[in-house]
Amino acid sequence: MINPTPPADAKLTSAVKPREAKVTPRRRKSPIGARHEDKLTAILRTAAQLFAANGYESTSLDMIAEQLGMHKATLYHYVDNKQSILYQCLVKSFGNLDDVMKRMEDRSIPVLHRLRIFVQSLAAAQNNDFGRCLVLVGSRPLDMAPDSKIREFQRRLDVTVRNLVTEGIADGTIRPCHPPMVCAWLFGALNWVPRWYKVTGNCSIQDVADSFMDMLTNGIATPHR
Amino acid sequence: MINPTPPADAKLTSAVKPREAKVTPRRRKSPIGARHEDKLTAILRTAAQLFAANGYESTSLDMIAEQLGMHKATLYHYVDNKQSILYQCLVKSFGNLDDVMKRMEDRSIPVLHRLRIFVQSLAAAQNNDFGRCLVLVGSRPLDMAPDSKIREFQRRLDVTVRNLVTEGIADGTIRPCHPPMVCAWLFGALNWVPRWYKVTGNCSIQDVADSFMDMLTNGIATPHR
Repeated sequence: MINPTPPADAKLTSAVKPREAKVTPRRRKSPIGARHEDKLTAILRTAAQLFAANGYESTSLDMIAEQLGMHKATLYHYVDNKQSILYQCLVKSFGNLDDVMKRMEDRSIPVLHRLRIFVQSLAAAQNNDFGRCLVLVGSRPLDMAPDSKIREFQRRLDVTVRNLVTEGIADGTIRPCHPPMVCAWLFGALNWVPRWYKVTGNCSIQDVADSFMDMLTNGIATPHR
Repeated sequence: MINPTPPADAKLTSAVKPREAKVTPRRRKSPIGARHEDKLTAILRTAAQLFAANGYESTSLDMIAEQLGMHKATLYHYVDNKQSILYQCLVKSFGNLDDVMKRMEDRSIPVLHRLRIFVQSLAAAQNNDFGRCLVLVGSRPLDMAPDSKIREFQRRLDVTVRNLVTEGIADGTIRPCHPPMVCAWLFGALNWVPRWYKVTGNCSIQDVADSFMDMLTNGIATPHR
C-alpha cells in the first residue's frame, strides 16, 4: 500500500484524533423523542470517530462511553451492542446519496456534469465522520449480522456510475471505454482519500473532488495540437 | 467503501482462497543454503496468502504450518515469530521496483512512457502474493517493530511519480497540475485493485494497468474538435 504524501500540507490520517469527540449539549428545548435522537446521533458520531481512528476491534464500549463522559449503563439506554452501533454508523454514512443517485437520472443535465456532482457528493459523504467509518472499517465486522442493506447501497453507487458512463458513451461525450474499469479507477481513488486527507489541510474535499474529476475527464497529458 | 463490481468477470477477492498454498517440493538438487532459502520463500508466500485472505490477526503460526504440511517446530527453524514473517513478506513485496525506479531516471524515454512502465510494474508487484499482503495488511501490525524500511520504500515510490509528473509539466507533455494530487489519484486507484481483482478473471493485471494509464493520460471525455 502506498499512502501518497498528502497534497498541500494535509497530514496522514493515521495520526488523526477524533474531532468533536465530546458531545456539546444542545441548548434548545426539544421533545423527548428528539432529544433521544440527538443523543443517539452524538453517540454514533463519537463511536464512528473512534472506530475510524483506532479500528473496530480496538474500540470498546467503555472507550465510547468515556469519550462521551457518559456511564456505560446510560449508553445501553440508547444502543444494544458494538455491532449495532457500527451498523447504524454505516447506514448514517449514506447521507444524502440516495437523493444524489436520483438526480443522476435527470438527462437534462450533461452526463459529465452529473458525474461531477456525483463525485463531489460521494467525496463529501466519504470524508465526514460516518463516511470515514464506512471506508476505513467497512461492514466486515458485521459478517454475522445482516449487512445486505450496506452491500446493496454500495452496489447501487457502482451501478449509478456505470450507467452514467454508458450513457456518456452512447451520446458521444465519453470515449468508447469499459465502464466497469472507470468504476474501478474512480472508486479506488475516492476510497483511498480518507486514508490521507486531513480536514485541517490546505485543500478542501471539494478541491480534491474537482481535481480528481478534472483528471478523470481530461487526463493529464497535454493534448496534441 | 465501494468495491466496484469487478471489470470483466473477475470476482471479488473477499472470497479468494490462497493460491498454491501447498508447497511443491523442488526436484533439483541444491546446496543446503539454497534449499533453506527456497523453503523460507515458500513459508513466506504461504503466510502472505493467508494474511491477505484472513487478515494478520486471524492468521496463526499453527495455520501457516498446517497449510504447509509442516510441524510448527520445523517452522521455527526458519522464522522467529509472526511479526518477523510479515516484515519479510513486506520486504519481498518490493520485488524489482527498485530497478524500475532507477529506470525512471532515464530521460531518453518520454516521461509518459516511463510513467506507463512504472504503473505496469507497480500493478504487477502489488497483485502477486507479497504485494497483496502489503496492500491488504500493510505495516500497521509492525508498529512495535522497525518498519522504517517499508515506509521509506513507499515514500520513494511516491516521490518517483511526483518527479515524473513535475518533469512532464516542465517539458510540456503534461498539463500544468498539482503532482501530489496525481499521486493521490493514481496510488489510490492502484492500491484498491487487490481488493477486487481476481487472477482468474478475463482481464490481466497488464490490462488493468494499461486501462488505468490510458484514463490517466487522456481522460474519458471525448476531446472537443
